[in-house]
Amino acid sequence: MHPLEKLFRPRSVAVIGASGDPGKLGGRTLFHLKELGYRGRIFPINTSGKEVQGLPSWRSIADLPEVPDSALVLLPAPAVAQALEDCAAKGILHVQVLSSGFAEEGGEGVVMQERVVEIIRRTGMRITGPNCLGSISPPDGYFGTFSSLLATAKPGPGKVGIATQSGAYGSHIYAVAGFRGIGISRAIATGNEADIDVAAAIDYLAEDPGTAVICASLEGCRDGDGLRRALLKAAAARKPVIIMKVGSTEVGAAAAATHTGSLAGEDRIIDAVFRECGAWRVSSIEELLDVAQLCAIAPLPPSSGVGILSVSGGIGVLMADACIEAGLDVPPMPPEVLAQIREIQPVAGGRNPVDTTAQLGGRMHVFEDISQAMMQGAQLGAIIFYLAHIGRNVARFPPLEEALTALRRSFPDRLVVAVMTSVEEVRQRLNVLGVPVFEDPTRAVRAILGAARIRVLQAAAAAPPAIGPGPPLDLSATNEAAAKALLAGAGLSVLPERVCLTAAEAAEAATALGFPVALKILSDDIPHKTEVGGVMLNLADVTAVAQGFDEIMRRARAAKPAARLDGVLVAPMVTDGVETIIGVQRDPVFGPMVMFGLGGVSVELFGDVAFASAPLTPERADALINSVHSARLLAGWRGGPALDREALVEALCRVSKFAARHRDAIDVVEINPFLVRARGAVVLDALIAPRRA
Amino acid sequence: MHPLEKLFRPRSVAVIGASGDPGKLGGRTLFHLKELGYRGRIFPINTSGKEVQGLPSWRSIADLPEVPDSALVLLPAPAVAQALEDCAAKGILHVQVLSSGFAEEGGEGVVMQERVVEIIRRTGMRITGPNCLGSISPPDGYFGTFSSLLATAKPGPGKVGIATQSGAYGSHIYAVAGFRGIGISRAIATGNEADIDVAAAIDYLAEDPGTAVICASLEGCRDGDGLRRALLKAAAARKPVIIMKVGSTEVGAAAAATHTGSLAGEDRIIDAVFRECGAWRVSSIEELLDVAQLCAIAPLPPSSGVGILSVSGGIGVLMADACIEAGLDVPPMPPEVLAQIREIQPVAGGRNPVDTTAQLGGRMHVFEDISQAMMQGAQLGAIIFYLAHIGRNVARFPPLEEALTALRRSFPDRLVVAVMTSVEEVRQRLNVLGVPVFEDPTRAVRAILGAARIRVLQAAAAAPPAIGPGPPLDLSATNEAAAKALLAGAGLSVLPERVCLTAAEAAEAATALGFPVALKILSDDIPHKTEVGGVMLNLADVTAVAQGFDEIMRRARAAKPAARLDGVLVAPMVTDGVETIIGVQRDPVFGPMVMFGLGGVSVELFGDVAFASAPLTPERADALINSVHSARLLAGWRGGPALDREALVEALCRVSKFAARHRDAIDVVEINPFLVRARGAVVLDALIAPRRA
Repeated sequence: MHPLEKLFRPRSVAVIGASGDPGKLGGRTLFHLKELGYRGRIFPINTSGKEVQGLPSWRSIADLPEVPDSALVLLPAPAVAQALEDCAAKGILHVQVLSSGFAEEGGEGVVMQERVVEIIRRTGMRITGPNCLGSISPPDGYFGTFSSLLATAKPGPGKVGIATQSGAYGSHIYAVAGFRGIGISRAIATGNEADIDVAAAIDYLAEDPGTAVICASLEGCRDGDGLRRALLKAAAARKPVIIMKVGSTEVGAAAAATHTGSLAGEDRIIDAVFRECGAWRVSSIEELLDVAQLCAIAPLPPSSGVGILSVSGGIGVLMADACIEAGLDVPPMPPEVLAQIREIQPVAGGRNPVDTTAQLGGRMHVFEDISQAMMQGAQLGAIIFYLAHIGRNVARFPPLEEALTALRRSFPDRLVVAVMTSVEEVRQRLNVLGVPVFEDPTRAVRAILGAARIRVLQAAAAAPPAIGPGPPLDLSATNEAAAKALLAGAGLSVLPERVCLTAAEAAEAATALGFPVALKILSDDIPHKTEVGGVMLNLADVTAVAQGFDEIMRRARAAKPAARLDGVLVAPMVTDGVETIIGVQRDPVFGPMVMFGLGGVSVELFGDVAFASAPLTPERADALINSVHSARLLAGWRGGPALDREALVEALCRVSKFAARHRDAIDVVEINPFLVRARGAVVLDALIAPRRA
Repeated sequence: MHPLEKLFRPRSVAVIGASGDPGKLGGRTLFHLKELGYRGRIFPINTSGKEVQGLPSWRSIADLPEVPDSALVLLPAPAVAQALEDCAAKGILHVQVLSSGFAEEGGEGVVMQERVVEIIRRTGMRITGPNCLGSISPPDGYFGTFSSLLATAKPGPGKVGIATQSGAYGSHIYAVAGFRGIGISRAIATGNEADIDVAAAIDYLAEDPGTAVICASLEGCRDGDGLRRALLKAAAARKPVIIMKVGSTEVGAAAAATHTGSLAGEDRIIDAVFRECGAWRVSSIEELLDVAQLCAIAPLPPSSGVGILSVSGGIGVLMADACIEAGLDVPPMPPEVLAQIREIQPVAGGRNPVDTTAQLGGRMHVFEDISQAMMQGAQLGAIIFYLAHIGRNVARFPPLEEALTALRRSFPDRLVVAVMTSVEEVRQRLNVLGVPVFEDPTRAVRAILGAARIRVLQAAAAAPPAIGPGPPLDLSATNEAAAKALLAGAGLSVLPERVCLTAAEAAEAATALGFPVALKILSDDIPHKTEVGGVMLNLADVTAVAQGFDEIMRRARAAKPAARLDGVLVAPMVTDGVETIIGVQRDPVFGPMVMFGLGGVSVELFGDVAFASAPLTPERADALINSVHSARLLAGWRGGPALDREALVEALCRVSKFAARHRDAIDVVEINPFLVRARGAVVLDALIAPRRA
């Protein structure tokens, strides 16, 4: 049994702070338990000790005749700690604290929440909240929440599990799911997350046999590895996870920080973590539920190829555009398939989308027959039908139902989606067949995209490889030469460079290395050398190098009089290749994260970089490179040679391993530029920032 | 009276091909006219000449006792031409041909459509179709269509006019509009567009007093200037135009071309035309109707600043993210406003979004009071409220209604939007107040974006300035030197360059111009010089130039033995600036269109270019530059100097005028690179392609 089973699906529950007044939160929660179909035992706890809402009640937890599986606490905040102590004493170890007035209000509330945390640590109790909406399990008739939504709409039972931090956010999702007929297995809102967070709830849902699809919403995240583990567990169980994370913009992140007290962080880092762990991120509640609904009904499409059959040419084109823009394929049908199609429906047009025209005269088998031809003719993962208003007419529906039944039977692993206006009955009958129905063509495509991507992401989902700590590093010096020495030790190529302390040494080094050369100031105190004029390029002879040495030292002294100068680095000029940037930064939540991009305007103007968790495998490194748009420059640009991608992959793996091994010692590794050449790749400049105390 | 008034709103209508069988198109159309509230006179025309569906009928148009305003033709295609002749003879000059079997089927159908066009030309008759769905005017109870939608859902009357090319596309929009309670003024589907196209329909709707908002959908466009005029008329009337154009991807464009026989064209060109003419392009039917619904109910927001008030912190953040990503502003409230907010609702958090928390205890005036403070404290164009499930509870609604009524009264020109789950009654009551209601937070933001942008676009909407033809050009030579001479004549700066016929001449020219120089092959037959190795850069002395001359001539002869070579252009090397690309291409539908972008990866890798109609005004040129992402490089890059933007604007205007003046003689002007320098800007290479015969 999962350790949270009793919390999500208690067979008996105490309501601490139960009230006879359904206007009060403790009254409303009791009312929901009593009236909405819960078959477990309910124990109201109330200081009066008389019956509450017709149920026998108890003065205290201690008085209860048995140990209930769970307790819901609805007392004023100052009384919560004692209630938790009482629960622990009684042996109730699964408690939901619905009361507010804790950390979210600051001041005294923070202190009270700390006390809750202390009780959890001491007793091993598991709690949700404080300041949470509670949880529901519609298949059990269990609605352990005061949500006012239930006054007008009770979520129905089904296979979609929902975990959100915010209660209002969650109840909005429950409500819309209900309007759309999406059944819920369990739903929980975790509130202030003194113990159980969204990740822990996902972990439960991933194991819960009643849940097939998981929807989640995060505002912040404190335990990156916990989130990774939960998402990977769901991916391994092949339960699609559709997830939202608010705070993606600066304004949003600032607001989320104010609101939850948790760091939003670099949005693309959480994006990368979701992707690596097989979760599909969406940006609206509508999309969340569209994808969830599709996944709950139908198989995930086995390829990104989509066949489009439309009774309207225009809407066929609209859907083809939407597919292509989303990154799905709309492969044109080969001539032999087109010939078959024309035989089935002579007026049909197009190679995919196929326009059947509306001239069908009730011959619904046309859809099945053409689909059969298309499915056999191309690697399609999904077929979309645009069927206009057929779904509004129940009388005209049976032949369509028959055609789709046959099609589903022939291709049980492919996704078949109907787009049309329809009445509820038709929609439900198609859902039973495993055919999701959408009214809006663009939303249908967006949902198919989600399902197709989830299949690919889950198949590739994996944690970053485990890696032990490396031997202690000497980080007493952090200038460029020291950083390069460390990276060379990690197996990266660096140039034959020399640290010089005098102009004469520099001239001699340059002569030995070969002209032209670059000179760079060396100082632990000057991490950004160009800012002080500490870099000179393309020095062509001995005189230029000697003068350059003096000039660079002079500039550094002028700009940073207090800096300790370690001399000047003399390096050969190498420019034959493409400049890339490789960085690893230690994210406070997700640990060391690799950043990769190409130098110049791609990064600085178009923000064309991508992130991945460290350490990288070669496959992940390759995917990281591919997810950078400008990486196509590596294949050769304007007739230039293809560059050594293998060397780049190897370097990414080595840097990422180095940073992961030394995560306790290093905050940042930045190699900029990292020059990828036709053969090999080399560190041109590097910076290592030791971990701040 | 608009020339199409009788077509859209006939006071009497003949149904040619009326049938007693409502299963047939001619029977269904008559049924709709008879049964759905039309108050005009209906004249069924039927070969039997007996009564049809209980109405007296006539054998022929000629027999009619009066001249009806319009006729609907539902005969088989081969009989249509004679029916049109009969209509013309009777004096009916507004006819809708609903019959199919014309150009859309190819072969004989094309010939029959040509005959229809000939009749239109000869008689001055105005027709929609053939192969169209007809039109409706719900306020008149007029449903002149066979659409099967009407069997289950009749669009209600309202202020939204709809013009689509495709009938199925149109009827999908009518259906969804109906489900959402969006009332329609007129709707038309133009089918094969032998005469009336979507632009002509928009032109009518722009003048129609019953229409306040226009929705349109195009698959192709044949008359670019007609579309411009219609959109500008709507913009001048301050009627929002929300428009879709399918075929935005290559696959979609190919499908649209198959399907409609019309060219999809470069999608960004039609994008530019829409924008210039004040129309707002959307990519889904859902978005089309969301924006239309908002515009039909509420004022367009006077600024892009949005205030967000939410009972849920999480959903406030979600909406803030959506605003920022869409390009709306979410300005933080100044401290004095925050102080006011805390006084009104002490537990409120955030600077915008403002989290009121759900602890309101029915105090709905909180929303009004906080909004008042926010509206006065910042330049907000709109306020969004997230109100959870308040709208599900009619009993709790009156205090909210009161608060919003007061708010609308205080700020009649600002947009107030409610996001919540709600019952229909609450939604309708808020709509009456001018408050649009959305269930999905992200959709609400997207609709606000549309409304805000429409206001800005309509205010700036203008046709490209009229410009007469220029004096005839000598286009007998088109090599680089000739192209530059023409551009110099148009007022652009070119370098002092020399055309040289021998190596000695080249060496002499280089000496006179100053080293280093560039050499470029000159030939009308070699428009792409680099492809034949016809460009050499950075030649530093007389020897290099002389050898370079011979080498270039040799390469050109080897690559293109048949080309006539006009010598070699010797030009000074100039590199101090940012390379841009200025192009003008004559679009077959929209005439000369300017393209602008920055050289290198910005264009080639990121497709960072923008289009505008020629000729440009300085304002439009400036906006064109701003719409290119990488244009920020012009302000100075990595400490470099700011570049001469004014010179660029002037050059764009001059090139665009030149191309527009000579649109009958020139297909393409391309200046690549056009170097923008710290002072001035200069043509480095140019190509002019005369108009193909």
